[in-house]
Formats: sequence, C-alpha cells, structure tokens
Amino acid sequence: MSEHAEHTGLSHLDDEGRARMIDVGAKPVTRRVAVAGGRLRTTAEVVALVRADDLPKADVLATARIAGIAAAKRTSELIPLAHLLPLDGVTIDFELGDDAIEIRASVSVTARTGVEMEALTAVALAGLALHDMVKAVDPAAVLGDIRLLSKSGGKRGHWSREQ
Amino acid sequence: MSEHAEHTGLSHLDDEGRARMIDVGAKPVTRRVAVAGGRLRTTAEVVALVRADDLPKADVLATARIAGIAAAKRTSELIPLAHLLPLDGVTIDFELGDDAIEIRASVSVTARTGVEMEALTAVALAGLALHDMVKAVDPAAVLGDIRLLSKSGGKRGHWSREQ
Amino acid sequence: MSEHAEHTGLSHLDDEGRARMIDVGAKPVTRRVAVAGGRLRTTAEVVALVRADDLPKADVLATARIAGIAAAKRTSELIPLAHLLPLDGVTIDFELGDDAIEIRASVSVTARTGVEMEALTAVALAGLALHDMVKAVDPAAVLGDIRLLSKSGGKRGHWSREQ
Amino acid sequence: MSEHAEHTGLSHLDDEGRARMIDVGAKPVTRRVAVAGGRLRTTAEVVALVRADDLPKADVLATARIAGIAAAKRTSELIPLAHLLPLDGVTIDFELGDDAIEIRASVSVTARTGVEMEALTAVALAGLALHDMVKAVDPAAVLGDIRLLSKSGGKRGHWSREQ
Amino acid sequence: MSEHAEHTGLSHLDDEGRARMIDVGAKPVTRRVAVAGGRLRTTAEVVALVRADDLPKADVLATARIAGIAAAKRTSELIPLAHLLPLDGVTIDFELGDDAIEIRASVSVTARTGVEMEALTAVALAGLALHDMVKAVDPAAVLGDIRLLSKSGGKRGHWSREQ
Amino acid sequence: MSEHAEHTGLSHLDDEGRARMIDVGAKPVTRRVAVAGGRLRTTAEVVALVRADDLPKADVLATARIAGIAAAKRTSELIPLAHLLPLDGVTIDFELGDDAIEIRASVSVTARTGVEMEALTAVALAGLALHDMVKAVDPAAVLGDIRLLSKSGGKRGHWSREQ
Repeated sequence: MSEHAEHTGLSHLDDEGRARMIDVGAKPVTRRVAVAGGRLRTTAEVVALVRADDLPKADVLATARIAGIAAAKRTSELIPLAHLLPLDGVTIDFELGDDAIEIRASVSVTARTGVEMEALTAVALAGLALHDMVKAVDPAAVLGDIRLLSKSGGKRGHWSREQ
Repeated sequence: MSEHAEHTGLSHLDDEGRARMIDVGAKPVTRRVAVAGGRLRTTAEVVALVRADDLPKADVLATARIAGIAAAKRTSELIPLAHLLPLDGVTIDFELGDDAIEIRASVSVTARTGVEMEALTAVALAGLALHDMVKAVDPAAVLGDIRLLSKSGGKRGHWSREQ
Repeated sequence: MSEHAEHTGLSHLDDEGRARMIDVGAKPVTRRVAVAGGRLRTTAEVVALVRADDLPKADVLATARIAGIAAAKRTSELIPLAHLLPLDGVTIDFELGDDAIEIRASVSVTARTGVEMEALTAVALAGLALHDMVKAVDPAAVLGDIRLLSKSGGKRGHWSREQ
Repeated sequence: MSEHAEHTGLSHLDDEGRARMIDVGAKPVTRRVAVAGGRLRTTAEVVALVRADDLPKADVLATARIAGIAAAKRTSELIPLAHLLPLDGVTIDFELGDDAIEIRASVSVTARTGVEMEALTAVALAGLALHDMVKAVDPAAVLGDIRLLSKSGGKRGHWSREQ
Repeated sequence: MSEHAEHTGLSHLDDEGRARMIDVGAKPVTRRVAVAGGRLRTTAEVVALVRADDLPKADVLATARIAGIAAAKRTSELIPLAHLLPLDGVTIDFELGDDAIEIRASVSVTARTGVEMEALTAVALAGLALHDMVKAVDPAAVLGDIRLLSKSGGKRGHWSREQ
Repeated sequence: MSEHAEHTGLSHLDDEGRARMIDVGAKPVTRRVAVAGGRLRTTAEVVALVRADDLPKADVLATARIAGIAAAKRTSELIPLAHLLPLDGVTIDFELGDDAIEIRASVSVTARTGVEMEALTAVALAGLALHDMVKAVDPAAVLGDIRLLSKSGGKRGHWSREQ
C-alpha cells in the first residue's frame, strides 16, 4: 500500500499529504442534521451547585449553552479545514447526573456539507464553559466522551452510533 | 445551607447567581503555567494513517497543532467568563498510541489570573481538528479525558493531578 | 396563563425557557431588507467638528461607516441567538443636525430569516464608533433611539414604524 | 479657526484629519473603572415575559448578560480606533421597569487607557441581545440612553454624569 | 469629467464617494473560481531551512498553508466592503525557488459574487506567516507580487492575467 | 549539518521541527516600534480615482486605513505563531504616485516581543482593501514590496533597512 493510497483515507489531505479545504461545490444542497454528546465528570458537590441553577437567578447552564451555540456558529474559524456554514438551528441540552453533567448538541443546516464538526464543537465548548465555572471547586473535572451520536442528510444518509 | 452560600462555591456567579467576569484587578501579576491533556480514541487504521504524517509532506498533526495554538490565543472569545490574557507561550504535543492519539498542551503567561482554560481549550480544539480530519474514516472516534494535568503560579501555588 | 405559555411569546426560548437558535430550515429563501435608525446626541461644538469631515481629509464619518458595515457582517457573533447570514448589501448614512448625528443603516439579504438585527447592530456600532471619537470632547454624549424603521420580505411581509 | 485646529478637538484624528490609533505608550498604567447605562423601551407585555426569567429555567437575561460581557472583551475589534485592553472584570445588571429594561455595565482594567468604550459597548450589545429576543413580540422596541455614567482612573481622575 | 463620474469608477463608493457594501442581491448564484499568486523573496539560506520542511516533522509550510486557508475563510472580516461567502474550497500551494518561495491560492464558491479577494487574502496571509517564521533569520525578506492570476464565473466570464 | 541544527535557524520550530508559540516570559517588557511599507501598483487612471479622495466625501483611503489598523490589532489571530499584544498605537499613511500607492504602517507596543508582524500585516491588509476597491477597474493591480523598514526596542536594538 503506497503512502498516497494511505493518505487517500484522510480526505482533507491531497495526494501529497497537504492540507486543503475540500471543494464541495459539486455536492448537492440538502438538509443535514448532526447530534453530538459529551460529559463533564466532576463531583457530587459540584453537580449540586449547578443543580441550584434550577432555582431562580443562576446562570451556569445558560452561560454554557450560549458558549455552545456560539461555538457552533464559529466552527469554521476554529477547525482549520472546516467550511463556513450558515446554520439553520442549534440546540444544547444538559442532563444532571450524580457526579456528571451530560451535554448534547443538535445542529441543522441546508448546505453542501454536514455539521458533524459544528455539533461536536458545540458540545466541547459548552463543556469547557462548565469546566471554567466549576474549576475553582473541582480542578480535577474531566471533559470526555465527545462523540457523534447521529447524522442525517448528504450522500451517505443516516448514521447512528451503535449503543 | 442557603442558596447564596451554595452559589458562593461557583466564583463566576455573584451572590444572586448571576454570571460575571470576576474582577482580578487586585491580584498580583505572576508567571503562571498550566498543562492539560486529552485523548482521541479512534481505530488502529486511523492511527496508521496519521502516523504516515511522520513521513514527508503530510499535514495532519501540524494542522491540529495550529488549531490548538489558535484556540489557546482565543480562549477569551470562546469561554464566556474567561479573561483575555496576552499569553507568553503555547506548545502542543501529540503521542500516537495503538488506537488513540494523546494530546498535551502547555500554556504560560505573566498575568493576574491563570491559564488553565487556555490549556484545556487548546487540547479540545487540537482534538476536534484531528476528529475533523479522521471522521470520514472513523465517524465513531471519541474525544475525551480533557483534563488539567498541572498548574503553577498564583495564590494557590502548584497543583498536580494525582495519578 | 402558565409559565410555558408565557415563554411561548419569546420565540428564542423553548418550552422550558431555554435559549436556542431557532431552526429556520423550513422557511423559504426570500429577499429581505431591514432599515434601522439611531441618534448620537452630543453638543453643537462636536457636530461642528464632525461637520469638518465634509472638508478634505477627515475620516470621522468614514470610520463610523466602516464600523457599522463590519458590525452588520458580524452580527451572528455578537447576538447570541442570531443566525449567520451572507448579506447581500449594507449601507450606512449619517445626517448632521444641530446637536445630534442621525444614523441610518439599510441591510439586505436573500435568506431564510430577516436582517433586523443586522441593521440595528450596524446602527449601534456606527454610533458607538462616533461616540469613541467625540468622547474626549463630550463624555456626556448619548446614543439612543436605536430602532427598526422598516422591514420587508418573509412570511409577515412589510412592516413600517408608525411615525 | 483653522481646519487643523478644529480637528485637534477630535483626538483620534491627526493634524490632517486622518484616523489613527493614538499612541498611549507614554501614559501610566493605572486602575480604571467605567460604568455605563442604557434602556430598552418596550411594552408591559414584553417586560412581563422577561420577568418570567426570574422563574426557574428561563435564559433571557443570562443570554443578554453574556452578550454584554463578550462585547466588552471584543470592543477593540468593534470600535476601529479603540485599543485592545486585557480587562480585569465586567459586570452587567438589569432592572425591570414597567415598560422598559434598564441595563448597566461596569468594566475595570489596569492599563494605559480607559474602558469607557468597553462599558458602552457592553450596554449596547446586551440591549441588542434583548431586542433580538423580544422583537417577534415587539418589533417597535427602542434601545436608547446609552451613556457613560461615571469613570475613574487616568490623568483626568473621576468623572460622573450630572443627574 | 465630474467628481461623481470619477467616483462611479470605484463601485464600492456611492455617487457621493461614500463607502458601501454593494448590494449583490440581483446577481445570479453561479460557480466562481479565483486563483492568485505571490512571492516571498528571502535568502538562499532561508529557502534551505524551509526546504528542510520536506523532511519529516517540520511544520513551516503546513503552518503557512493553514494561515492562508483561515484567511480566505475570514476575508469578509478583514476587507471592509467584502461580502461574507460560504466558500466551496480552498487550496494553497508553495514552490521553493533559489531565494524565493512562490505562493499560489485557489478559491471556489457558488455565490452571487466572486472570490478574488479571498484568493488574494489567502496568498497575503500565507506569505505573512512565512515571513513571521523566517524573520529572525532574514528580517529583510520582502512579500510581493500579490496578484490575481485568473478568475471565472459571473457576468464577465473568464479573466486571465497576461503573461 | 544536521536537520536539527538547520531547524534551529527557524525559532518558531522546536528541535523536532514542530511549530510552537515561543515562550517570551523571560524577556523584558520594553517599548518597541516597527515600521513597514508596501506598494499597490495599479494604473494612472486608478490613482486619479483614488486621488479624488482628497476631495470631500470620498472614503477610499479612510477605508483602507481602518482595514490596516484593524489588521494590526488582530495580527495574533491571523499569524498562527504570533503573540497577542495590546498595542500602544498604530498609524497608516498613504502616498499617491503616478501609477502606484505607497503604504506605510507604524506600530508601537510596550511588551515582551516586537511588532514587526503587526506592521507588516497592517500594510498587507490596507493594501488588500485598496485592491478590493480598485479591482473592478484594474483587476491586474499588484500588491508588493511588503517589507520591514525599521524596528527598535528589544534585545537586538535598532534595525533599519539598507536603502
């Protein structure tokens, strides 16, 4: 197997291994949706502090949600070979567990390429924003399991993560 | 335990639970360093493709490294309550395992507040950039274990993650 | 009237009051125009200084105009729940009064959602740029009356402010 | 009075009326604080919808607050001749009236130049974010009275708006 | 020839010479491609250092390539009257000469206006990034010959630079 | 001569040729100034159109000047390994020749590293903004001679380009 053939596996590289923003001009404009998830593992104490956000007047989850939405919109500035996409919509949801906060982002677009990176970036930045707010209490918190859950639209159709 | 006391635990919120950018004006300017790590779990096939980046002319790791450095510099735009910090330096390192790529970022500054978020954000974006480049081959890749490894400088002195 | 029903009134919130970027994917792509206005109230002395900008070689109004156009283009980064829109065109006009500068912005797009926020943001930033340039002479200047004047396109058709 | 003398009044212009970013290198580094205010005039119905934000789970004011803090941090990108300043802190407060929402921003820095524009920009963007969220219910809302309330630090010392 | 007629020559200005972002709403959406070139003139010593980038593990050209791609995507933020365009693709190529590095950028889009500025901006920033990396060795390096090589698509059809 | 020794010549690369943002934390904070120049070669017709900018009400040079100042402030976002620097001041000057426009940028800072890239980036973007405004009349315009003219401050002291 030649080096070039190997590189063919990574579509963001040309035959010589050079980075490029792939030309999607020949792909059809279709509706595409991607859903991604992640998890901030922290302590029961921190989750209790964040859960207080369900009480009036606390901004923790709203702040992280806005960070995730903003990141989805700016993905093309953050991921070097990603295309700028005028997104149709973005939602970010949180679920509080015993010692972890689950994060889920759903992103939609009508475009020539998908929004997997937008959903993943939204999860990562929402998670980092949470990390920022809890780090004084729990510097050891871990952000992980940032992964694509499903995507639809485009040539390859629907893909769902196996459970 | 009152709601306000609870909120006191999250220093980015005021007594009423409102988000704010904390005033660090009274803190001393000191040299601060933070190191963070993370891991992209993928397949042995993908690691082999990326390892080809050690051959001439392939840009995978360089692209991810630049994404991480750029993210460190723009952390204050991405994390809503983070301070803008004129960073002294940023380095990003990768280590290729069997079916995973380890990511490590080290960030330094001479300032009134630390660079933990800059190091974590650098790791996350370097990892997302890798994710972007391998996702056509492995849409199921998982970015995780984004965590602070150590920090030094500032009032609380040195902190290292327990192994 | 339930809390949820109340929230229904604010379309950027979901049924639980959570912020989201509304999915506009099902809306038709149409030509849309929005016009907004505003006013910097200052002193006759300052207006005379700015009026000198009609003389050769003074950049006050040009600087504010560029600030307004740039802001229109970056509205989706500034307004958390706004969609990124590839604008068709932007114009900014100023009219000098006795002790005030009137600002007007007109923005057009061919898209699934309107450009009211782009026009309003253009007016606000053009006004703030003026404020910046006159503040050494008149720190008490007031930027106000930032309001939508008219919009057209989209499901609801034309709307004009009552005089 | 010559044109040049006139222009001298606008310190962001050189003797020929050309825009420049003034060299502040010779000014001392001091602690500086600026407070600005503004007001979104809308309807009693809208204020009631926003007031519901004091109930659990509504993100209106948190979203506007984050927009204001983010704008303060990015003022140097938005105001053409403003200096980039690593801010010490930013707070945004809202007060709900009968048919208006009062906005107040306080910004602090330890630097060679002041943060008036940062405070004014924070107010303007927090107000525009509110405008965005209420515009479907009240397209006629007006953002105004964006003005400096006080500033301290620097050569000229304290300045407070006359009531 | 009147002043207004003169200004008509510069389409980004209105009849009064005021800057505007031209309304392209009436232009058809077509596929457009632009290619631009440039050259960093430096020393044979520097070219040898960069040429070492063909060896494993050196990031010089990859870093400049990412800078060029990022700049193409952000052209509308950098060029005051340019339209935001969701680009289809971007490629950046380098050719090492005796004492110079040739830079070439190709940008494509499906839109109402062309991508000449995106291609030129990509070349300029790739060149500046190279400049940054070699400036400690050769502060006298010169970036030049930044020019459009060809463009296609749109009303005026194909244009190629005469050799 | 080993590969590592070769790479040592490019200070932005580590011993293995990997890009990094160099740690400047140990360098002293000093006042630093850099001046850069460049030239847009176009036609006598275009220069006449731009010269009309000396007449009232034309924004060509002001627009390019603002583009250059804005670029200087955002250099750290555009040049991958550049440090963010809170600039003291920026000025951009133009000189109209027979068939060319000379561009000069002067940038100052009080910091641990110099502003050569800020001055060069300001020249390049001011030149590209001019290019944008004249390209409908002269698509063959060439931006070149982007070079450092002088720098002062820092360990190496004053450097001036030989004439």
